[in-house]
Amino acid sequence: MAKLEEVLQAYKLGNLELSDALTQIQENYFQDLGHTVVDHNRPSRNGAGEVVFGSGKTPAQINDIISALLAKQTNVLITRLAPEKFSQLNLPQAGEYHAEAQLLSIRVAPTPPVETTVAVVTAGTSDHKVAEEAALTAEFYGNPVTRITDVGVAGLHRLLARIDDLRQAKVLIVVAGMEGALPSVVGGLVDKPVIAVPTSVGYGAAFDGVAGLLGMLTSCASGVCVVNIDNGFGAGYLANTMNRL
Amino acid sequence: MAKLEEVLQAYKLGNLELSDALTQIQENYFQDLGHTVVDHNRPSRNGAGEVVFGSGKTPAQINDIISALLAKQTNVLITRLAPEKFSQLNLPQAGEYHAEAQLLSIRVAPTPPVETTVAVVTAGTSDHKVAEEAALTAEFYGNPVTRITDVGVAGLHRLLARIDDLRQAKVLIVVAGMEGALPSVVGGLVDKPVIAVPTSVGYGAAFDGVAGLLGMLTSCASGVCVVNIDNGFGAGYLANTMNRL
Amino acid sequence: MAKLEEVLQAYKLGNLELSDALTQIQENYFQDLGHTVVDHNRPSRNGAGEVVFGSGKTPAQINDIISALLAKQTNVLITRLAPEKFSQLNLPQAGEYHAEAQLLSIRVAPTPPVETTVAVVTAGTSDHKVAEEAALTAEFYGNPVTRITDVGVAGLHRLLARIDDLRQAKVLIVVAGMEGALPSVVGGLVDKPVIAVPTSVGYGAAFDGVAGLLGMLTSCASGVCVVNIDNGFGAGYLANTMNRL
Amino acid sequence: MAKLEEVLQAYKLGNLELSDALTQIQENYFQDLGHTVVDHNRPSRNGAGEVVFGSGKTPAQINDIISALLAKQTNVLITRLAPEKFSQLNLPQAGEYHAEAQLLSIRVAPTPPVETTVAVVTAGTSDHKVAEEAALTAEFYGNPVTRITDVGVAGLHRLLARIDDLRQAKVLIVVAGMEGALPSVVGGLVDKPVIAVPTSVGYGAAFDGVAGLLGMLTSCASGVCVVNIDNGFGAGYLANTMNRL
Amino acid sequence: MAKLEEVLQAYKLGNLELSDALTQIQENYFQDLGHTVVDHNRPSRNGAGEVVFGSGKTPAQINDIISALLAKQTNVLITRLAPEKFSQLNLPQAGEYHAEAQLLSIRVAPTPPVETTVAVVTAGTSDHKVAEEAALTAEFYGNPVTRITDVGVAGLHRLLARIDDLRQAKVLIVVAGMEGALPSVVGGLVDKPVIAVPTSVGYGAAFDGVAGLLGMLTSCASGVCVVNIDNGFGAGYLANTMNRL
Amino acid sequence: MAKLEEVLQAYKLGNLELSDALTQIQENYFQDLGHTVVDHNRPSRNGAGEVVFGSGKTPAQINDIISALLAKQTNVLITRLAPEKFSQLNLPQAGEYHAEAQLLSIRVAPTPPVETTVAVVTAGTSDHKVAEEAALTAEFYGNPVTRITDVGVAGLHRLLARIDDLRQAKVLIVVAGMEGALPSVVGGLVDKPVIAVPTSVGYGAAFDGVAGLLGMLTSCASGVCVVNIDNGFGAGYLANTMNRL
Amino acid sequence: MAKLEEVLQAYKLGNLELSDALTQIQENYFQDLGHTVVDHNRPSRNGAGEVVFGSGKTPAQINDIISALLAKQTNVLITRLAPEKFSQLNLPQAGEYHAEAQLLSIRVAPTPPVETTVAVVTAGTSDHKVAEEAALTAEFYGNPVTRITDVGVAGLHRLLARIDDLRQAKVLIVVAGMEGALPSVVGGLVDKPVIAVPTSVGYGAAFDGVAGLLGMLTSCASGVCVVNIDNGFGAGYLANTMNRL
Amino acid sequence: MAKLEEVLQAYKLGNLELSDALTQIQENYFQDLGHTVVDHNRPSRNGAGEVVFGSGKTPAQINDIISALLAKQTNVLITRLAPEKFSQLNLPQAGEYHAEAQLLSIRVAPTPPVETTVAVVTAGTSDHKVAEEAALTAEFYGNPVTRITDVGVAGLHRLLARIDDLRQAKVLIVVAGMEGALPSVVGGLVDKPVIAVPTSVGYGAAFDGVAGLLGMLTSCASGVCVVNIDNGFGAGYLANTMNRL
Repeated sequence: MAKLEEVLQAYKLGNLELSDALTQIQENYFQDLGHTVVDHNRPSRNGAGEVVFGSGKTPAQINDIISALLAKQTNVLITRLAPEKFSQLNLPQAGEYHAEAQLLSIRVAPTPPVETTVAVVTAGTSDHKVAEEAALTAEFYGNPVTRITDVGVAGLHRLLARIDDLRQAKVLIVVAGMEGALPSVVGGLVDKPVIAVPTSVGYGAAFDGVAGLLGMLTSCASGVCVVNIDNGFGAGYLANTMNRL
Repeated sequence: MAKLEEVLQAYKLGNLELSDALTQIQENYFQDLGHTVVDHNRPSRNGAGEVVFGSGKTPAQINDIISALLAKQTNVLITRLAPEKFSQLNLPQAGEYHAEAQLLSIRVAPTPPVETTVAVVTAGTSDHKVAEEAALTAEFYGNPVTRITDVGVAGLHRLLARIDDLRQAKVLIVVAGMEGALPSVVGGLVDKPVIAVPTSVGYGAAFDGVAGLLGMLTSCASGVCVVNIDNGFGAGYLANTMNRL
Repeated sequence: MAKLEEVLQAYKLGNLELSDALTQIQENYFQDLGHTVVDHNRPSRNGAGEVVFGSGKTPAQINDIISALLAKQTNVLITRLAPEKFSQLNLPQAGEYHAEAQLLSIRVAPTPPVETTVAVVTAGTSDHKVAEEAALTAEFYGNPVTRITDVGVAGLHRLLARIDDLRQAKVLIVVAGMEGALPSVVGGLVDKPVIAVPTSVGYGAAFDGVAGLLGMLTSCASGVCVVNIDNGFGAGYLANTMNRL
Repeated sequence: MAKLEEVLQAYKLGNLELSDALTQIQENYFQDLGHTVVDHNRPSRNGAGEVVFGSGKTPAQINDIISALLAKQTNVLITRLAPEKFSQLNLPQAGEYHAEAQLLSIRVAPTPPVETTVAVVTAGTSDHKVAEEAALTAEFYGNPVTRITDVGVAGLHRLLARIDDLRQAKVLIVVAGMEGALPSVVGGLVDKPVIAVPTSVGYGAAFDGVAGLLGMLTSCASGVCVVNIDNGFGAGYLANTMNRL
Repeated sequence: MAKLEEVLQAYKLGNLELSDALTQIQENYFQDLGHTVVDHNRPSRNGAGEVVFGSGKTPAQINDIISALLAKQTNVLITRLAPEKFSQLNLPQAGEYHAEAQLLSIRVAPTPPVETTVAVVTAGTSDHKVAEEAALTAEFYGNPVTRITDVGVAGLHRLLARIDDLRQAKVLIVVAGMEGALPSVVGGLVDKPVIAVPTSVGYGAAFDGVAGLLGMLTSCASGVCVVNIDNGFGAGYLANTMNRL
Repeated sequence: MAKLEEVLQAYKLGNLELSDALTQIQENYFQDLGHTVVDHNRPSRNGAGEVVFGSGKTPAQINDIISALLAKQTNVLITRLAPEKFSQLNLPQAGEYHAEAQLLSIRVAPTPPVETTVAVVTAGTSDHKVAEEAALTAEFYGNPVTRITDVGVAGLHRLLARIDDLRQAKVLIVVAGMEGALPSVVGGLVDKPVIAVPTSVGYGAAFDGVAGLLGMLTSCASGVCVVNIDNGFGAGYLANTMNRL
Repeated sequence: MAKLEEVLQAYKLGNLELSDALTQIQENYFQDLGHTVVDHNRPSRNGAGEVVFGSGKTPAQINDIISALLAKQTNVLITRLAPEKFSQLNLPQAGEYHAEAQLLSIRVAPTPPVETTVAVVTAGTSDHKVAEEAALTAEFYGNPVTRITDVGVAGLHRLLARIDDLRQAKVLIVVAGMEGALPSVVGGLVDKPVIAVPTSVGYGAAFDGVAGLLGMLTSCASGVCVVNIDNGFGAGYLANTMNRL
Repeated sequence: MAKLEEVLQAYKLGNLELSDALTQIQENYFQDLGHTVVDHNRPSRNGAGEVVFGSGKTPAQINDIISALLAKQTNVLITRLAPEKFSQLNLPQAGEYHAEAQLLSIRVAPTPPVETTVAVVTAGTSDHKVAEEAALTAEFYGNPVTRITDVGVAGLHRLLARIDDLRQAKVLIVVAGMEGALPSVVGGLVDKPVIAVPTSVGYGAAFDGVAGLLGMLTSCASGVCVVNIDNGFGAGYLANTMNRL
């Protein structure tokens, strides 16, 4: 916020007109691209640069946003970026694209390291796409990630075999479709926060993830919180916030 | 069905008029009390006498039905019989009333014995009422019942400690509120049918049992089937049918 | 479980280090393929080998799982395997593929015979796909199946004409879309367990199977339990469990 | 509409001012009581006098409406009139009150007779209250009613024994709670219109009548239409309309 | 039912064995095509031949059913028959296909005439497809139909201009999407039964017809009943039943 | 905002310390009562003083808030104030309490007059309570209100008779339960904004106001907007805002 | 309405027969195109010509309607007109087509000017399509529009920076997907009516706009009303009505 | 886990029989009270003693559980304990009861101190009860709590005035009813995890907390997770877990 103090000081000393002071203050905070208002203040406010939700934007809009962020030396993360749309981008700088998780990351600034681990646990193979969105997001923000795959509750021994990995993590993301029972079981085994992510895997009464969502919200285990259906990004972002506490 | 054959034979031989034959056939099947049509044919058709759903009936109607059933030497089971209503009944014969489960049973005929066991498993103390409705119903039909209480998935070791009891049962009823994860876990541990009963225990997103119901219907474990929310009677009745297969 | 005892005995006698004992124990239970953890313990625990839900997996993943299961001489059943995906598989051994029911089965080990019959009853022609998933699953596990087709309640005489077939079955699967009334009617005619399967057939207020699901859960007949919408596999699996009781 | 023609004629001939003509026309149609606008035109428009929905009105308001209707020699029907509210009324003329169905009727004019019969069919004893609302409404409008009670689909023989009564009716009202399967079965047995009335009887997944409502709307039988949950009055009113066609 | 009496008489006289008598009785009622059980008894029971729901059946199945019905000299009506499927049929006899309403009719027997009229009223142009399904169905069964188009409640004068047509009909079908207010308004203007058909027209909170369905079920007008969303066929069939009362 | 400018000027001139400036700015905006933070800035921001939602507060809390508002010479409006709670208040100054609408108003400052009229239209007598909440709120803010009562769409002539009153209003509030059709009809008759208020009147498929809410949201008439179920206050407040445009 | 008076006068003087008078009156109100009844009376009744909902109509039907409207010198607005359908139209006169908003406008008559401004505020870039439908509709009716883009509540400073623009508008349309919080925040900042438009942007628990819709309906800010999900047209139309008050 | 190692060592050395070893292991984990199985292992597994959900248990059951926990020197927390039930308890040791939050706590062991703060933020006065459940739970586990009350988004300046308090907290719990917008706004202002708690405050389309729940799940701010409606305890428990990371 140092820059703001300079502006205010200059205004108080009469070195800056009121209208100019207001303009400089605003430019410090955001940049209006016409279609999008890029939030340049987010790193100082939220500890992480603006993340772009790719699915409702045109390739041209995404290009504009990427340029604006890179110009400020901010690392870029685009979520829900379908392969067709990715292939239409005109990247000013090479990035890393993960087709399954539909994530694009471009790194231009170092990320402060963190030692402790985030565990990403999945109930079944079909939940993998959402789990990768979570894991890659956590890694984008500099967190070591342990993946624990396909340990759904119908075969408890597979989960119990990984109990040490579960307990070594500082934060756990548990991704599950269908009845969403896995976070309750994991929540009963650890003393760390569990971020539950329901997926839209399943059919019929799974109602595209509603069954799992309700199950996770009403979990009998304490220490479990929930994010939106299929919201791997939200879980990974939140895990970073917690892991850095 | 022996009696029906006699009627048909008598009709063929000319010993019975058509109208009389029709009347005798009908009387063999049901009895019209005005407000209720008692189904006397159910034992031969379904292997169990008619069960009376008490909650929408007046004490006088219930008295009539009990008398009609006892007159045919049929054991009587009344479900959802609130204590106030029970105290207004005028029983022709002593019965056994369970206030928590709201069940009244009157035995006038022997029940054929069955050796194998039905397990009734509950996730939490609050599910006890529904579990007792299931257990007492199974016992009414002559089944030995093992009760396994308060073994919800947030403390897995409590469940695993009872694994032998689980595996000795021929049929398992699993009663759970909130996220309803217990049937999935039990279903993954045994090779017998699991009847899942969601309860209306919980608040908020439990939606009076909907969360548990959806969770059980979308269970990742095979071999699990579901009955209506709080339907302990249905589970106990079905367990008897299975246990006698 | 004989193998486990050997390991423990060897450990007690000092013939096995602790870490080796732990490894051997785990290998007896499951096999980690990276994307999937195959549950090799399921036959001893659940009485049936792991079944693979095909719809969320790539052909390569399915190939891996099939190979792992066949290597243990386990019969393979893949459900929800679309024809396009089936054509991309590279089967190590010939299997039987049913395009309508989207099931692939590969038999490498004998199935113990069972004498009694499972009836699969459908309300309408449009429910056939789900009914075949149920019937073929029951047959995969060695059960004789009687198919009773298109006997919906709007033409009761069609159902009543098959009453002997209904009563000869030891377990009944009743598949119905729209209002899902057939299980209630069948449940009133037999003394065996009825597994009701709602289908997503219908439009408007059928809500992709919800109308039938609710109808079956609130059935006025006792002895009826319910599985998920369109879950023919679950019904067939459960019918096998019951038929072998 | 004779009176209206007189007014128009008088206006054309100059015997009536414009404002007076408008006033007289309006008075022919309705009467404003302040809290309620009584629709005196309904008999000529809909063939039946206005029916008063009692549940949201004060006793004083209901008294006013009754007086206004009786002053026009219109028969009065008040629905959803709780016993407490009935006891607070100050009736200008004796009426007939049915406590179970919560209906009050006052007859001051003859009802044209109708020969053909309306059948009111109920699935269970607990549906009786709604069925009586339907039956008494149909009788209020002059229709002979046949009551067929407690013939739910779990005991088909009870229904089949009444098939002649079903087929002699010109219109059938079928009242059912829980899964609401009875209208489908009845609809498959007759060639007359079936008015299905779901009731809020049941618990859990019955969702206060939603299960039955959806079942009836998606009935596999043709010739079935549906009214609101517990709307016995609507069914009785509609049955009268049909029976007089 | 004459044929049945002959069979019974022959059996009583000893001219027919029991098994042959049973077979002949069954053949009189239905015909099993393997995939479908054609209900040949429906005309005598319901006053109208079986109608085929085309959407869940293969062209080959539909061909079989058509042949079976025509062999009994029954008029054929196929609903929800998409143009692609129609073009794959191999009709034994020319029929009339309506692409918008997706209806195929083949007439081989005369339909008894009816004088009175069915009105089919639509709220908007977008409801036309469902309205035509209703109108053509009513015409298939021999009813004269008056179409009253695009008279939604936002422009009441369009409706009021057609009030004579509304009042001349013996039965009214009112088809409306979005809020479904039209049946309430029409129901308040006539003394004949109104069959309300919600359509899936609309977006957002119309929820594919749910808004209209709920509106029609809770209509403040008496004399209105409801069929399933988009169920033009059901409305037309029911209108025929009522128009012939 | 004059006061704020003084503070800033004083600060710039050095007559005010930074911390004191901040405090004075905050006090201009709100007052923290511990349990409640009274928003004293609302009149200048929203053109109307803070309104107190009474239903979740204790009498003591309400007393505190009233005192704080009166101390600033702000007129007070308390909504959803049940009679029991009203009787426990200790008013510093006489107010006007409307028991049916559960509104308390205390006037200490004049309200600027407005000439044009707000019409409050109700479909039925049972909607009166919500309509009064709307009408009294509009009157509290100084608007003349025309009440048009019991003009539901099942008797259109009652509505059409009031068409001049409808058209003379500058803003219309239309309150309706059940299917909520009235706003669509009114919206088609006027060229002014229509604020639709669904009420929880009705039963069964009315779902406590959901049917009406969906109907109003999907209204075929343009110029209609919607507030929450039973939210008479919101409608009256909004009508004032519009009437003063 | 001058023309109507002439007709009535002519009829009273005997210069016009009754049937001719009726015909002339009707022609003044609407025109029946067979598939559609064009409402020519709407400008005098609602202050704006009929708007055509394009999505359920064929190109030929739309052509007919455009011709009928232009023949009366009415400006034409077609909503939800997909580009494919637009390209099939045969316009008698050049119009302006906006592909993103799917709007076609043809101006043949001047629109009376209005000075005050409508603000269209969007939460995110993905809400742009709906916002443009609203803005272009408001402009079609002659309103100056201020667009305030991408000012969602997660970055409040972007919104606060535009507070002057917000406060200069006479009417505000606020378009938001996901949780729909923006209208509550805006509603707390202005003293003008806020029309909230939920969009179907979001996934999972956004339920295609339901989350935003519920949020807006239950807004803690007064002065907010809501239109249907994605209903930009409705918001723009209503804003014009309000802006001209 | 030291005790377990002793048991295993003793068994390996032959100092303990197999059955005795198993018994000792189990006793270390839980205690079966008949109605409840107390989980004594939870402190070592989850870092916090078992918490008792009071609402489904009898006073006698709660007494038993309290005694069992105190006997192990475990601090006791009972949630959802209504005042009537609290007054029936027979506490062996004085506790602290909070009637509004319905919490009982009994401290017998010290809690390790934590320096950093948990902020509990509420949108309105009516959310206070749930917020206190959260705050008192966090305090029970030893966390300093800052309460920030009544800062809903309709008066943003109240929230912005507390921005320093918000930013000093290490974890934030945000409690809100109605549209639940507050967590999105707070989430945009801080770089710490936000636990959102929807409350059942509101009416109509708030649907007992569903509107807020959906809003929070679909929040446009990153770093927000959600617990069940009214689940203040869950939020407080989770905040402790995070605050101790």
